[in-house]
Formats: sequence, structure tokens, C-alpha cells
Amino acid sequence: MTDHTYKKIELTGSSNVGMQEAIESAVTKASETIQNMRWFEVVETRGHIDNGKVAHWQVTIKVGFTLGV
Amino acid sequence: MTDHTYKKIELTGSSNVGMQEAIESAVTKASETIQNMRWFEVVETRGHIDNGKVAHWQVTIKVGFTLGV
Amino acid sequence: MTDHTYKKIELTGSSNVGMQEAIESAVTKASETIQNMRWFEVVETRGHIDNGKVAHWQVTIKVGFTLGV
Amino acid sequence: MTDHTYKKIELTGSSNVGMQEAIESAVTKASETIQNMRWFEVVETRGHIDNGKVAHWQVTIKVGFTLGV
Amino acid sequence: MTDHTYKKIELTGSSNVGMQEAIESAVTKASETIQNMRWFEVVETRGHIDNGKVAHWQVTIKVGFTLGV
Amino acid sequence: MTDHTYKKIELTGSSNVGMQEAIESAVTKASETIQNMRWFEVVETRGHIDNGKVAHWQVTIKVGFTLGV
Amino acid sequence: MTDHTYKKIELTGSSNVGMQEAIESAVTKASETIQNMRWFEVVETRGHIDNGKVAHWQVTIKVGFTLGV
Amino acid sequence: MTDHTYKKIELTGSSNVGMQEAIESAVTKASETIQNMRWFEVVETRGHIDNGKVAHWQVTIKVGFTLGV
Amino acid sequence: MTDHTYKKIELTGSSNVGMQEAIESAVTKASETIQNMRWFEVVETRGHIDNGKVAHWQVTIKVGFTLGV
Amino acid sequence: MTDHTYKKIELTGSSNVGMQEAIESAVTKASETIQNMRWFEVVETRGHIDNGKVAHWQVTIKVGFTLGV
Amino acid sequence: MTDHTYKKIELTGSSNVGMQEAIESAVTKASETIQNMRWFEVVETRGHIDNGKVAHWQVTIKVGFTLGV
Amino acid sequence: MTDHTYKKIELTGSSNVGMQEAIESAVTKASETIQNMRWFEVVETRGHIDNGKVAHWQVTIKVGFTLGV
Repeated sequence: MTDHTYKKIELTGSSNVGMQEAIESAVTKASETIQNMRWFEVVETRGHIDNGKVAHWQVTIKVGFTLGV
Repeated sequence: MTDHTYKKIELTGSSNVGMQEAIESAVTKASETIQNMRWFEVVETRGHIDNGKVAHWQVTIKVGFTLGV
Repeated sequence: MTDHTYKKIELTGSSNVGMQEAIESAVTKASETIQNMRWFEVVETRGHIDNGKVAHWQVTIKVGFTLGV
Repeated sequence: MTDHTYKKIELTGSSNVGMQEAIESAVTKASETIQNMRWFEVVETRGHIDNGKVAHWQVTIKVGFTLGV
Repeated sequence: MTDHTYKKIELTGSSNVGMQEAIESAVTKASETIQNMRWFEVVETRGHIDNGKVAHWQVTIKVGFTLGV
Repeated sequence: MTDHTYKKIELTGSSNVGMQEAIESAVTKASETIQNMRWFEVVETRGHIDNGKVAHWQVTIKVGFTLGV
Repeated sequence: MTDHTYKKIELTGSSNVGMQEAIESAVTKASETIQNMRWFEVVETRGHIDNGKVAHWQVTIKVGFTLGV
Repeated sequence: MTDHTYKKIELTGSSNVGMQEAIESAVTKASETIQNMRWFEVVETRGHIDNGKVAHWQVTIKVGFTLGV
Repeated sequence: MTDHTYKKIELTGSSNVGMQEAIESAVTKASETIQNMRWFEVVETRGHIDNGKVAHWQVTIKVGFTLGV
Repeated sequence: MTDHTYKKIELTGSSNVGMQEAIESAVTKASETIQNMRWFEVVETRGHIDNGKVAHWQVTIKVGFTLGV
Repeated sequence: MTDHTYKKIELTGSSNVGMQEAIESAVTKASETIQNMRWFEVVETRGHIDNGKVAHWQVTIKVGFTLGV
Repeated sequence: MTDHTYKKIELTGSSNVGMQEAIESAVTKASETIQNMRWFEVVETRGHIDNGKVAHWQVTIKVGFTLGV
């Protein structure tokens, strides 16, 4: 195992289905431009309420990826 | 956008199905008496274990709603 | 209600299905050796990303159980 | 066990006797208007000092009670 | 000094002028229905950005007031 | 002073008398099976409310003890 | 409302006038290269002291913006 | 009310009787050299265990006092 | 750059004008007895409410200064 | 990758040489009885001062290991 | 001193030698693409354990650099 | 063991060699004027970056010492 350097960025994904879908949505969006994503950490879970019901789930995550390999 | 004031209250919802159902249950219960709920933030996730299995999910959220509109 | 003492241990469960399955997996594994588990508290939610998708969910929980009953 | 919803409110009790009395004072005061209180959690402990001695203990707690049963 | 009990509620005030105005706006709004407010504590400061400029300041505070005097 | 290693475990003691009794109860219970306990740190103080009164104090502590001496 | 993904970056703005000016300065600087900024959250407020007076205000904020719209 | 400045210092008091006595011991000791102490805030509660029993309570507090009146 | 040692003290400044004035008031008061103050960090913002209005702003800061130069 | 469960325990290692040696000392001690240790996380760094010099470094870590493989 | 804006990014460096080497490794890697780095703050220290020994140190830092000078 | 009172002060030591040297430098500097220092706790680790390399390590510690013995 060589000495890698990782960068962590903070993303907020949203979904009207649920928490996991919000996380997966953010990871999928990030994969369009970032290679070598390795892990995520949930930072915060929130959501919008509309008309007395949960209308949107929003999950903020940190995503770590290998720098410059 | 006028200068709204929001109040945030803290609720714990429970469900024997899962985390999202616990959150939705708290929001539904609150909607019986509170108008104009706008968002929620997850504060804590816990649960009861019975007979070696998760028997109840309990999620504490803060709910924000517009004051006096 | 007599004066119980509880011990809390920290476990990380993992699952390629989702967050709840990771928690349930840890509780099930712990139930092989621990009697009288009573509750859990979620401490941290993370996961592995492989090929631009969430490949594994990892949830760290504290599990409380009654000591020496 | 049905799916209850709990509300948590934040109170600061005070006493010139001690910490427990400050907590009990807040719980007693709250019981005048709130039914079905179930648990409390200590948030912060402070106090006033007068003439080089502790003159008043102030303990902030969260109190959880069952909503609308 | 008798043994008062205080209740703390959480409010978010907003203003397009600044942080202090957001706090003062929340306090003024609360004063319409709450007597005996005694202090506030800033919990969080946020704001909306519109067209590359800060458009709205939002400050969340806890407000403490004397219960039932 | 040689280079000791300490292990810290997390316990929740309970008492219907008070906070100190809850801590002492947990330490006494732990002393049945653990040798060489050296210190404790209070992590959280909670309690049950029954009939508008504090019925049970619950204090969670970490207990440190010397490993394998 | 479609399922947006937001990215949050951390900036420190500075000003010799005050806290709000430090925040506004960071937002203005960021607007030169970032489109679609939506909100900010204050993380930390500091400053330099020179000759017994506050000489510079430094406020660290997180700025959220819509990814790839 | 004029514009006072307060200084806060951090003290750890100890007692073999209990938590309150540890706090009061620290306040009494501080009163030998500090005038105008106004309030305290509990920061941390710990203790020594000797022979399977709590032998010493140690409470760390912050003490606020008026500067230079 | 030689190896300086800094000391950090905690002060609470107050003002009936605003948050910045409370900070500046604390720094000015401290400058009467402390040389070589270098920076401050905001720890907490609170205030008194009187008659339904903010009457006093109180900001707690840590102030760092060079030791013994 | 199958669905592992990990347990995390909290250890404090000490050394009169330095921080890394305190961590390595705790890991070595734990390896006498625990198989399959996988990672550690630093929780707290402290030390004893004797005669105006650092005499002992104490680092508290959490150690994660695979349960029951 | 003009009104600079700084950006802070989060990096995880790793090393099989030690904590400082992990930090220095992350800073060196970042210097390949980032100009004007000014400071770092340690966020988290972890490591891998292999065969009962620390095999890799991983330190997460935030790095601040001047924007667009 | 009599009932000692300890005071804790906050210091930031710096060194161009490393983290431990920064801590030791702060302890040595403090020993010039403070008797009976007993322990330290690391609060924060930072540093300056110059020309793409770590140029200075800065570690903030709390130092506890016995009051008035």
C-alpha cells in the first residue's frame, strides 16, 4: 500500500423517495466528473415538508477520492 | 421574500418498520395541530431491541414552521 | 423497577443493501453472544463507493444491554 | 407497543439547594400543564455565585412527553 | 431570588439587512405572544445568496422566558 | 511509572435516589467482574419521569481500568 | 422540484469593517468563478488584534451551490 | 446596566463527598484571590475509583467574574 | 519566525449597541492590562431581552496574546 | 466483500517517549488478546507534567476489529 | 493588509512512518496543483492495523490558501 | 488525598520541528512562571505552510496545575 492522498468534498443530494436515494443521487452526480471515489460519510439529514408531508429528503455527505493517481 | 420568523420544535417519531417511517410518523402527527411546517432536521436515531432483533425505530427531528402567517 | 446497570458497546455493521440492513446485521451478530440487549443509538453512517456507486453501507451503533441479570 | 410521537421541550430549573432539586423543580413546574411526561435529559448545569459562594443552581433539561394520547 | 423555571424555545429570524436585524425580528415577533422573555442565545447563522450576493440573513436563536409567573 | 494500557468501558447506572447513587451503583456492579478500575467520566445524565415526578436517575459513565496487570 | 445535487465549499472572508462585510466579501469573491450559489452557513468568526484594537474580521463560511445545472 | 467585561477561568474542584461539594470547594478556593465572581458553568465531571468504589469526585467548571470594577 | 508561546484567555464583552461593539469592548478592556494581543475567536453570542426587545448583547471570545516577549 | 461486523473498543496507551509510541503501545498490548484488529482512531491526547517537563504521553484511541470470523 | 479571501479544502494524507509524515505528504501532494497555501488544521487522526501493529497512519487536515491573488 | 483545586490555562506552543516539540515548548515556557503543573490536554493542532511545505507546527493545549499549595 503506497502513500495515497485523498481529497474529501461535501455534497448534498436530494430525493423525493428517501434517504438512501438522496445519497446515491449525490454519488452518481459526482461520478460524472470525479474519478476514484472511495468512501462517503453522512454529515446531516434534512428534508422539506410540504402540505404536512415529507416532500424531499436532503442528505449531506462527504465523499473521499484518491488524488492524482 | 418578506422577513419570516420560524419556530423549531423537537419531536421523536417511532415505527416498527424503519427510520423513514418514524420520521414520517412524527411529521404526520404534528400536522394535526401545526400549520405551515417547512422543513425537518434529523437530530438522533435510536431504537429498541427485543429478543435480539430491532423492534422499534425512534428518530428525533427538529421541525421548522412559519410563525403566525 | 429495580436499579439496573447497563453496558454499552460500539459495533459497526455493514450491508450492500442499505442502512437499516447494516444496523440489523450488527444487532443479529451481537445477539449470538450477548443476552438482554435493550436499545441501540446510531453513531455514524458511512459507506464504500466502488465504480461510482455506493457498494457498501456501514453504520456504527452503540448497543445497550442489561448487565448480569 | 404502538407508534407514539414524543415532543421534547427545554426547561431550566433553579434551586438554592442543589442540582437535583433544580431538576425536580423544573419537572414539578412542567407537570402543572403537561401530561404524560416520560423522561428528561440534562443539557447544561450552571449557577450563580454570590459573595464567593454558590447561591443558586440552574440546570437545563430536555423533557420528553407523549403527544396527543 | 425565588426558584424560577424558564422555558427555552428555538426561533429563526430573517432579515435582508443583517444579522442583528434577523435576531431582533425574531424577538419582536415572539413578544407578540410570549411574556417575560429574559435572554437569547445564538445557535446558527445562515443566509440565502441570490445573484452572487447575500440576499437574506437567517439567525437561529434560543429564547428563554420565565414560566408561569 | 511504567507504560500502562487502560481500557475504557461505557456503563449506565440507575437509582431512584439520585445522580451520585446511579454512578456509584454502576461502579459497584462493575467491580464484581473488573479489577483495577481507576477513574470514571460522566457522559450523560437522564432519568424517567413518572406521574409528574422524577422516578429514576440514569447516569452513563466511562470507566477506565488497567489492562492486564 | 427536481432532484438537485449541491456542493458546499468552505471560504474565509476578511474585512477591516466588520463581520457582515467579511461574509459579503467572500461571497463576492466566490461569485467570480461559481455560478448558482444558493446559501451560506457561518462556521467560525475570528479576527486579528493590532495595537489593542480589532484590526481585521475573519469569518469562515460554507457556501452551497447547485452542481451542473 | 453599564457595559461590563467578564473573564472566565477554568477550575477543577475535588471532594470525597460528592459533585456539589467539589464545585463548592473550587468556588471557595477561588474566592480567596478573585473578587466579583458571578456565575459558573459545569464543563466535565470525573472521579477516581479506589478499591472498587468512588473515592474522589472531580468537577471542572468555568467561573465568570467582572473585570476591573 | 521564532518559536513563540501564546496564551488564550476567555472574555465576555457586553454592549447595548450590537455584537461587534461587545467584542470591541472586551478587547479594549483587556488592552488595559495585556500587551501583545494577537487574535480573537468568537465562542458564544447571547443577550438580554427586556420588555420584548434586545437590551444587551453579550459575546464571549477567546483572546490570544504572545507570552513573555 | 461479505457483510462483516466490527467491534470498537476504547484504549488509552501511555509512553514516556511520545504520542506515536503511546498509540503503538496500546495496539501491541491489545494484540495479546484480540485477533483481527483492523483500524484505530485517535480520540484524545493528554499527558502528565512532572517538574516542568512532559513526563508521560497518554493517547486514547478506538480500535476496530472484525467480530467472530 | 488587504481583504483576502481564503478557501479551505479537506485532505487525508497517509504514511507508514508517522503522523507528521502523513500531514507533510498531503501538503506536498497538494502543492503540485495549489498555489499560496497558508495554513493547515488537523481534523482527524486514524490508521490501519495489520498483524497486530500500526501499518499506516492517516491524518485528515484542512488546508487554507489564498483565492485568486 | 486532600481536596485540591486545579486551574487550567490554555496555551499555544509552536515549533518548526514537530508537534511534540510545540507541546514541550509551551510547557517549558509556562514552567518559568507556574509551579505545580500536573497535566496537559491537546485541544487543537495547526500549522503554517510556506512555499508548499509545513513551516511551523502550532499545538494548543490546556495545562492543569494545583492552585495555591
